[in-house]
Amino acid sequence: MTPIDHTVRLSRLGDETLLVTNLADLRWLTGFDTSNGWAVVRGGDVFVGTDGRYGDKARAETAAIGATVIVEQQASRLRARYEELARDLQPDATRIAQLRMVKDDAEIERIEAAATIADRALGEVEPMLHDGLSELDLRAELEYRMMRHGADDRSYPTIVASGPEHGARPHHGASRRALEPGDTLIIDVGALVDGYHSDMTRSWVIGEPSAEQRETYELVALAQQAGLEAVRPGSSSMTVDTACRDVFEEAGRLDEYLHGTGHGVGLDIHEPPFHNQWSDVTLEAGMVVTVEPGLYRGGFGGFRIEDLVLVTASGQRPLTHSPKRELN
Amino acid sequence: MTPIDHTVRLSRLGDETLLVTNLADLRWLTGFDTSNGWAVVRGGDVFVGTDGRYGDKARAETAAIGATVIVEQQASRLRARYEELARDLQPDATRIAQLRMVKDDAEIERIEAAATIADRALGEVEPMLHDGLSELDLRAELEYRMMRHGADDRSYPTIVASGPEHGARPHHGASRRALEPGDTLIIDVGALVDGYHSDMTRSWVIGEPSAEQRETYELVALAQQAGLEAVRPGSSSMTVDTACRDVFEEAGRLDEYLHGTGHGVGLDIHEPPFHNQWSDVTLEAGMVVTVEPGLYRGGFGGFRIEDLVLVTASGQRPLTHSPKRELN
Repeated sequence: MTPIDHTVRLSRLGDETLLVTNLADLRWLTGFDTSNGWAVVRGGDVFVGTDGRYGDKARAETAAIGATVIVEQQASRLRARYEELARDLQPDATRIAQLRMVKDDAEIERIEAAATIADRALGEVEPMLHDGLSELDLRAELEYRMMRHGADDRSYPTIVASGPEHGARPHHGASRRALEPGDTLIIDVGALVDGYHSDMTRSWVIGEPSAEQRETYELVALAQQAGLEAVRPGSSSMTVDTACRDVFEEAGRLDEYLHGTGHGVGLDIHEPPFHNQWSDVTLEAGMVVTVEPGLYRGGFGGFRIEDLVLVTASGQRPLTHSPKRELN
Repeated sequence: MTPIDHTVRLSRLGDETLLVTNLADLRWLTGFDTSNGWAVVRGGDVFVGTDGRYGDKARAETAAIGATVIVEQQASRLRARYEELARDLQPDATRIAQLRMVKDDAEIERIEAAATIADRALGEVEPMLHDGLSELDLRAELEYRMMRHGADDRSYPTIVASGPEHGARPHHGASRRALEPGDTLIIDVGALVDGYHSDMTRSWVIGEPSAEQRETYELVALAQQAGLEAVRPGSSSMTVDTACRDVFEEAGRLDEYLHGTGHGVGLDIHEPPFHNQWSDVTLEAGMVVTVEPGLYRGGFGGFRIEDLVLVTASGQRPLTHSPKRELN
């Protein structure tokens, strides 16, 4: 894989003074991947603080940017060093997040590798989608296969939501419930490669679909297509959301759409831009975002279709390649 | 499994008024397992707030305690309802955490089931510990086997730390590094059952151990035994930590002990009591804690031995049953 050049990122900050406490921001800026740490950037110098567990790791991972690493075993002492270095600073909440939205080539390479691993695992597991298998069985097979195909980890606990109740909960995890004929089934799965996430969702019916299932699935597929077509430079995350909502509203089913239309993906599985009616960002080439409309109703179940796409100069390029079949 | 009775927990609060925002506390008190929610307890009434993704789940999971469930799709509206209900309250940081330290029988059953699953997976994977296999290979096998043996999930990303550098980092994750003859190897693994965690660590040498490896391993085993013997009602978490530290100090190797001696385990993998020199709790029957000393040095690697134990009326009962072999 192409190495990530953290000196370039740092140079984009020029002479800015910054306190970084968000751990994904810290990793993006300095290369230091930790569960406890912070950085202060001041006049081109970088100070990175952490505790005794991560001292060696911090030194190794920030060597390239020449950071000064501060290691304190005791939390109160680390806190004191933090307060000394950061006394006139507020943690940065948006500056790094904003820079992180547009991915460089090394990042895109990792996200695409992760998406490809998830595609491959799902392709292998799809033939197993029969009644009798539990949601957790499917999840175990998917996650194991992603690891065997080179993922460092799953991107998030894989969602396997089957049947009239679980399928109606957009963020249901996975349970011991076994698939039954007639179930709707949602699988939302991603892989992690060198810190970068992927994210995709596909939906099925177990056995022969009903007319209502077919109609609902088609509507979700239509909305997803409309959302994808709205992704291009100069468009906005609100526009993408609106494109999906319009399809559902036209069909009188907007009340069954229980979440936003997507989000950025990178070092965090959910990061800006968020496609919804309340937070809006103009899309730029290099952003990596999901488009994931769905419809959900208790007693019926649900469908969601989600692709991960790269915003390009002319529109978007899918990073997800799992087929979006018509219902069998 | 024995059902968990949330009405009993609630009744322990009597007439207390409480704002609960920690998600594990929320689950412990109300049964509602979510990534976004809060509860206000006031005069015996419970109000639970969440967003549209979790409305059905909140109603289903809090039906037994008769909670009033408040669902708002939009974050700002949910925030307004929260501010209205919680206007005179500070989020509780310690009350529920304190109650959670002593486990009831249903909780112990789940934690023990999780520990047994991890034991079983490790027993199957141990014969694979040969050079050539990568840390991530081992992790994939362990996590897959835990799922197949009935875990709802891993308890945390399994730690597989091999060789002179990774082994010297107590919280190294797992990498593509392949095992080599002469490596120290640490595996730290747990399972999740119905929300409850387990936690254990075993250590090995790949191939024939050196004299220094044998000596270091024996020292860690001695310290762990001393720590276990210090676990009993009326003892304290600081005493458990001191028992381990004394062994290392006597051997002149305290500078290689880079973390605390253990922690409580329940709905969180790390929860009070914490065995260290700065936070101290008197141990009581029903607490479930780890005892996990280790020694680490760059260029050498490291060893850690960790058991999960239940504090009983007379001392402690191990929930971990994986053998603690002498080095081969």
